[in-house]
Amino acid sequence: MSNGLVVVGSVALDSVEANGTVHDDVLGGSASFFSTAASYFAPVKLVAVVGEDMPEEHLQFLGKRGVDLLGLERKPGKTFRWKGRYSADLSSRESLDTQLNVFADFKPKLPDAWRDAELLFLGNIHPSLQLDVVTQVKKPRLVAMDTMNFWIGGEPQALARVLERVDLIVINDEEARELSHEHNLPKAARAIRAMGPKTVIVKRGESGALLFHEHGVFAAPAYPLERVVDPTGAGDTFAGGFMGYLARVRDVGPQAVRRAMFYGSVMASFCVEDYSLDRLRTLTDGEIEGRYRAFRDLTHFEDVRL
Amino acid sequence: MSNGLVVVGSVALDSVEANGTVHDDVLGGSASFFSTAASYFAPVKLVAVVGEDMPEEHLQFLGKRGVDLLGLERKPGKTFRWKGRYSADLSSRESLDTQLNVFADFKPKLPDAWRDAELLFLGNIHPSLQLDVVTQVKKPRLVAMDTMNFWIGGEPQALARVLERVDLIVINDEEARELSHEHNLPKAARAIRAMGPKTVIVKRGESGALLFHEHGVFAAPAYPLERVVDPTGAGDTFAGGFMGYLARVRDVGPQAVRRAMFYGSVMASFCVEDYSLDRLRTLTDGEIEGRYRAFRDLTHFEDVRL
Repeated sequence: MSNGLVVVGSVALDSVEANGTVHDDVLGGSASFFSTAASYFAPVKLVAVVGEDMPEEHLQFLGKRGVDLLGLERKPGKTFRWKGRYSADLSSRESLDTQLNVFADFKPKLPDAWRDAELLFLGNIHPSLQLDVVTQVKKPRLVAMDTMNFWIGGEPQALARVLERVDLIVINDEEARELSHEHNLPKAARAIRAMGPKTVIVKRGESGALLFHEHGVFAAPAYPLERVVDPTGAGDTFAGGFMGYLARVRDVGPQAVRRAMFYGSVMASFCVEDYSLDRLRTLTDGEIEGRYRAFRDLTHFEDVRL
Repeated sequence: MSNGLVVVGSVALDSVEANGTVHDDVLGGSASFFSTAASYFAPVKLVAVVGEDMPEEHLQFLGKRGVDLLGLERKPGKTFRWKGRYSADLSSRESLDTQLNVFADFKPKLPDAWRDAELLFLGNIHPSLQLDVVTQVKKPRLVAMDTMNFWIGGEPQALARVLERVDLIVINDEEARELSHEHNLPKAARAIRAMGPKTVIVKRGESGALLFHEHGVFAAPAYPLERVVDPTGAGDTFAGGFMGYLARVRDVGPQAVRRAMFYGSVMASFCVEDYSLDRLRTLTDGEIEGRYRAFRDLTHFEDVRL
């Protein structure tokens, strides 16, 4: 995959309150988490927009991780900002402030050299923009997307048009239910598969993730962690580990997708161990392999028939 | 295990409203679900009490399943009755009526010949009764228990004394949190293990079950079912499949316990497919093996290292 993996999404400045402390102006946004996680497996190309207030150190961090920033626009004005607060048990969060800023007029534009991308991930942005990006790539092997309740409720028609064009959707359980009007997750996944994406991955937080595709169903557990610090970006980090692994092995077949689910879970399990993407700043390949083995042990048993 | 598996718990008449229909006076109770599920793997001995209103056909059903009813008392009066209604999505239920009836004065008494039981399961009854039963067995290889919020909140001291005497507890996530005062499940399990049971199994409904013991942690998924009819008894059925499998293989080592988690999940996945324990009336060994293979496929992938 010469022009392997492209992601379009948000690069943001977050203010997050969790576990009783506030972290202001930390690096956030779906594309930041995604590309940092993916960078551990394969080079990744980022399409996003930031304002003049984005500290250079954040962009330097992404660059040092091997994230190609050719598709990152810098516009006059302020960067997309999100402020949120988690409940004491981290099971829910409240958005205190969302400022689109330069993101309001974002028109994602792939550099010409990236139009032959083999893997494309459409982070959680307006479905019309997601569709526009899909039309900019020539002949991708796999197009995956994320979305959120805001677009499911507010832009159903635009969303329907993107869904027809993607191979895979990564979505959380509540979003899957809202999109399909089905409470039962296997039924919800079947309904969503009928909308376009042949593969549906349903993220369930600390209950792990489920994969539904023509080869059946697959369950990846979440790693039971004693210490969870900040869940922000865990879903995007899962998607980054997942897509990064597929780019690394240059395979989008059913077995590769199952392994990719585990690597996505591995990366998400690290993400939540510290604020922002701080845990992903110091992560080593050895730690990733160690956690992967721990995940294997979590579900492995010697099969002895009755 | 000559005197293999003994269960003490309730045999009840349930009235259940789920999926818009009401089923009155169906066979229910923790020991009924447990022993029916376990009977697919090994003979099981039942200690419980019923009143004069218990239809003979229910007891004949248990007898035909190979459940030894020598320890089943028949008392004047009415059988323990529970009436409940599930929410439309089956994710919560409301108890409409609970009548202890003959269960109010239940003094479980093991037949002498059963005192050398190797495996003992203490269904969800008053912890003082659970403790009394523990003292009646001579030298069991494994004693397991269930409990519920009602006893955790109302009888903490009696519960603490049982916990000190058991090897394993099967408990749902909310009960684990209440018992340990820890929201985080790995922390909760660690706290509960410090109370006595070396092995803690946390049931999480459609998110599967987690096993915590000295050999680490293990996750068994729930099978993603499109058709769930009645969740009543799923937890007891899980416990029955789990303990029944251990009795069958005469092994309580860490690998056997992991496989037992899967067989417990298999049996629970059948249980919820019909009202009461109706699905367990017609189940075949072939169906159990087929679902077990489906569970294996649900978590299995070819391991290729990076």
